[in-house]
Amino acid sequence: MGVPPGPGQRLVGGCQTGRGLLPAPHKLLPPGEEEEEEEGEEGACRRAGPLLSRARMGVCSAAPHRCVWSRWDPLRWLRSFQRRTLARSSAPGALQQGKPPGVPAGAVSRPWGLRPGGRRGLRTAPPGSQEVMLTSERYGVRRLPFSPLSDSDLAFFEGLMPGRVITNPEELEPFNVDWLRSVRGCSKLMLKPQTTAEVSQVLRYCYERNLAVNPQGGNTGLVGGSIPVFDEIILSTVLMNRIISFDKVSGILVCQAGCVLEKLNEYLEEQGFIMPLDLGAKGSCHIGGNVATNAGGLRLLRYGSLRGTVLGLEVVLADGSALDCLASLRKDNTGYDLKQLFIGSEGTLGVITAVSILCPQKPKSVNLAFLGCQSFAKVLETFTTCRAMLGEILSAYEFMDEKCMELVEKHLKLSSPVAGSPFYVLIETSGSSSTHDEEKLNNFLERAMTSGLVTDGTVATDDKKIKTLWSLRERITEALTHDGYVYKYDISLPVGKLYDLVSDTRARLGRSAKNVVGYGHLGDGNLHLNITADSYSHSLLDAIEPFVYEWTARHNGSISAEHGLGFKKKQFIQYSKPSEAVLLMQRFKAMLDPKGILNPYKMLPSSS
Amino acid sequence: MGVPPGPGQRLVGGCQTGRGLLPAPHKLLPPGEEEEEEEGEEGACRRAGPLLSRARMGVCSAAPHRCVWSRWDPLRWLRSFQRRTLARSSAPGALQQGKPPGVPAGAVSRPWGLRPGGRRGLRTAPPGSQEVMLTSERYGVRRLPFSPLSDSDLAFFEGLMPGRVITNPEELEPFNVDWLRSVRGCSKLMLKPQTTAEVSQVLRYCYERNLAVNPQGGNTGLVGGSIPVFDEIILSTVLMNRIISFDKVSGILVCQAGCVLEKLNEYLEEQGFIMPLDLGAKGSCHIGGNVATNAGGLRLLRYGSLRGTVLGLEVVLADGSALDCLASLRKDNTGYDLKQLFIGSEGTLGVITAVSILCPQKPKSVNLAFLGCQSFAKVLETFTTCRAMLGEILSAYEFMDEKCMELVEKHLKLSSPVAGSPFYVLIETSGSSSTHDEEKLNNFLERAMTSGLVTDGTVATDDKKIKTLWSLRERITEALTHDGYVYKYDISLPVGKLYDLVSDTRARLGRSAKNVVGYGHLGDGNLHLNITADSYSHSLLDAIEPFVYEWTARHNGSISAEHGLGFKKKQFIQYSKPSEAVLLMQRFKAMLDPKGILNPYKMLPSSS
Repeated sequence: MGVPPGPGQRLVGGCQTGRGLLPAPHKLLPPGEEEEEEEGEEGACRRAGPLLSRARMGVCSAAPHRCVWSRWDPLRWLRSFQRRTLARSSAPGALQQGKPPGVPAGAVSRPWGLRPGGRRGLRTAPPGSQEVMLTSERYGVRRLPFSPLSDSDLAFFEGLMPGRVITNPEELEPFNVDWLRSVRGCSKLMLKPQTTAEVSQVLRYCYERNLAVNPQGGNTGLVGGSIPVFDEIILSTVLMNRIISFDKVSGILVCQAGCVLEKLNEYLEEQGFIMPLDLGAKGSCHIGGNVATNAGGLRLLRYGSLRGTVLGLEVVLADGSALDCLASLRKDNTGYDLKQLFIGSEGTLGVITAVSILCPQKPKSVNLAFLGCQSFAKVLETFTTCRAMLGEILSAYEFMDEKCMELVEKHLKLSSPVAGSPFYVLIETSGSSSTHDEEKLNNFLERAMTSGLVTDGTVATDDKKIKTLWSLRERITEALTHDGYVYKYDISLPVGKLYDLVSDTRARLGRSAKNVVGYGHLGDGNLHLNITADSYSHSLLDAIEPFVYEWTARHNGSISAEHGLGFKKKQFIQYSKPSEAVLLMQRFKAMLDPKGILNPYKMLPSSS
Repeated sequence: MGVPPGPGQRLVGGCQTGRGLLPAPHKLLPPGEEEEEEEGEEGACRRAGPLLSRARMGVCSAAPHRCVWSRWDPLRWLRSFQRRTLARSSAPGALQQGKPPGVPAGAVSRPWGLRPGGRRGLRTAPPGSQEVMLTSERYGVRRLPFSPLSDSDLAFFEGLMPGRVITNPEELEPFNVDWLRSVRGCSKLMLKPQTTAEVSQVLRYCYERNLAVNPQGGNTGLVGGSIPVFDEIILSTVLMNRIISFDKVSGILVCQAGCVLEKLNEYLEEQGFIMPLDLGAKGSCHIGGNVATNAGGLRLLRYGSLRGTVLGLEVVLADGSALDCLASLRKDNTGYDLKQLFIGSEGTLGVITAVSILCPQKPKSVNLAFLGCQSFAKVLETFTTCRAMLGEILSAYEFMDEKCMELVEKHLKLSSPVAGSPFYVLIETSGSSSTHDEEKLNNFLERAMTSGLVTDGTVATDDKKIKTLWSLRERITEALTHDGYVYKYDISLPVGKLYDLVSDTRARLGRSAKNVVGYGHLGDGNLHLNITADSYSHSLLDAIEPFVYEWTARHNGSISAEHGLGFKKKQFIQYSKPSEAVLLMQRFKAMLDPKGILNPYKMLPSSS
């Protein structure tokens, strides 16, 4: 262990960048000699077989870095890496990955893997954190003329759903602030219906009384869409968490809107299926919220968007009428597809109460490759190469820059088996034959290495290790919140232009920003551009906006790929949609919710 | 050749049913002996390798039918079969499969593979054919108070698009009748715009003048949606056939609405991609029509519906205003997804003028298995087995009953290498490695044979032979038209119930129908139920409807899986949609087309 690299050789997998987190577990072996694998550990990361053979065949002399990776034992390395990571994550006070089991229905939702109480801990923990300013004050919003809540209103709701009417300010607090601590409302009432009939009665009453309503799922949104701006009644789906049916022949799941995504996935996995979407907030987000925001996430590359996988919806409209489009059919061309209007409408057109969704079979074999690239051009070329070579088994292609890696290491104490590269990519394959999938992956890795697209890397096949590697990518959002106030941008661009926006923004902001980072779903052309600063400032915001939006529009991108517009982006819709389209949207809104009581101040610009 | 089967053995691939179309090309060999393959033919159908081994291992004694298939040489058989088929299809006057190359833009479109002039030939050829009755007379429809066409209208259009204004009744005739010869209008004018601006000008004029408009693509629809009911102006997309852009990195194609599906696929294949949809009418149908009817077809099982693959649309609304939602981004969550409302709206909300669509990579390896099953229960079990074993490479699972096979053989003189089964399934795999795919397919076939799910079968890997086998399934629609007047039903049902509807309808109609057949996209839960009779009769229609719709509604199905409602099904929408949904659809229609000039008498019920 710890043999220094020879001339022209570069170590991979160990700690070469001076961040000092890791011992050096790599080992250089003489050509033709392999280190023995440790016994007794199931599903270990596997060696990149063909690469070893190539090294022995003398290919290494032409490209030294290949030899290093070929001879490095990812199995042993990842084991020690894994031990260290797990030891850290179980330390007292550490953030917990995923949702702990056995949390009762109705408990406060914990977005992005925070444990109960994590929200409060977070309030004082990150540097520069402070009391969240009211949205209405920070952004200078004027309250629309909705009725104020009266005692008789409260009496009505208490009669309708006794014990599920929350008015205690302390209990209400977490539902009045978003997880990013960037927007805050002052709702005085939260209702927790259990059935569609109750949602219907609530909305019928609110519509008649002209009371504004803020539908809320897991409250994991990133654009302020799930938080009241003023005193809107919070209508929570937290108790609507019943699975209605699952058909193993068709793979169609029907459930209430408040089911937590991760719970659904766990339920399906027991039946040999998975949810067609996956995202970092899975431990808290509700499927209804996912549909209402047309969530994208990590599996879109493989299974497509919710517009294809959602087969039916049940929705309650602003006036309380229920619309039953909860079909469980893969094909149905009888009239306009009304459910599509509610997918991605962010609670402004109706409240989704139940979802019918097509679920793919659980793949029998999953592999993950985590690779280092020396430039963004190589990230792109690696993508086109792996898409061609992995074909139907490619299920994710994610990228992150070295700044992301630094933040994840610094704030969450995670460590990566691959270091010292300006860019990292995470390639997941999912298929029905581990032998075939590994052969395809090995062929691709060999090509990527021999052509110099990729310089470092590791491969995992075991569930636990796959999760550990995924967490490097999935927990970037969480790491960013520890870095200060976060300005978040979720941009669609032609893939070739994706990283130029990060570089240009970084150059523009200079030292006025703490960090400017880029990561995201490269396979979908989706960049998450994030800028951190010690605290919120109008002047920094003015330096970023509308610069980022103008840049995006100039390159025919979208200013919101998957996060939606919510409160924070609604005024910028015109950068991605022509005025005729926005006007038409406003006509739809006026038709379906003439009093505008559903999630006001969100998604559509106040005036146009 | 021609050795009679021994006791307990059943011949496959030859003609045992007395239809006398084929010599018997099968050959029974002693155990352990294989017939030599012919040389010099590329990409031949391959033997089911493992099955041969099993047969030699003595498995055959327990299940004689397995031995027959094992020893039968599909390669040689399919070669002779292919020669016969090709010889027939090139005979004078024969129907031609696929569209011939080099047809000039603007030529009369030829649905379902008919060659130019085929339409007229068809009019007299099928038994029982007769002049098509006017829709308004057959169904007793009253004309809505649109303005009649005036000389000044004609002058305006002639000024706008000189030479592309068709008023000659003979030229108009094929566009006033559907391909099934079931509906007929009396339009006196067809316009052939080339640009979105022209479509816009036409509609603005029509809207002001209150002239009704019937948008028309390839006129391959099956529910009378593309044919005028009275004298609506036919607005054809036939000259809007320009490919605007294709990006090889993202796989995103942008093109005008009048591009023919097959032409697009040919263009993409040259770049290593394919269209995400495929259907029997591909040689004539326009992509704009595909989107307007939310066409399903043969690749939906693998690539999902157009709701997921269509990324953007350009649409001209009833008043002539153009709506540019022609994004080329995989993800875009900026406001309501307006394009979804136009997908599947059958030309009643706007005229689609351009489409942006995500195209998958062309698979490197395609295999086709054509198999015989002894019951529908076995068809279903074969499906769940192959879905589990073929996983990500399964790209189609189609079924047809023996009646379909009889009609294809009788009317089109096609012949099948697999015969004598009550049901047939067609399983296609598409993947990136022929070795892996064949191994998966062989494993599945072995399981299917040993467990008795499948009794006969053949496998093809070569393009030409794959097409020949596909034609047995794809040309059923065409064969049915030769059998007389066709009552067509396109039903979504839970797969377990799919064939019960065929059996129940057959029992109900008895001898009043000529043939009752069932086939379709089993993998999508989509049944095509077709009933033929010598000619149209009200009494037979009354025996079928609403029986079929009530049966479907009772089993939570959809009365139109992929064909849409058009003219013929619009009054039955309530069997699949609640009245609240229909009312909402009517409100959308009233909002977007207040004068109702776009494709009147279609999709939505006249009153509700």
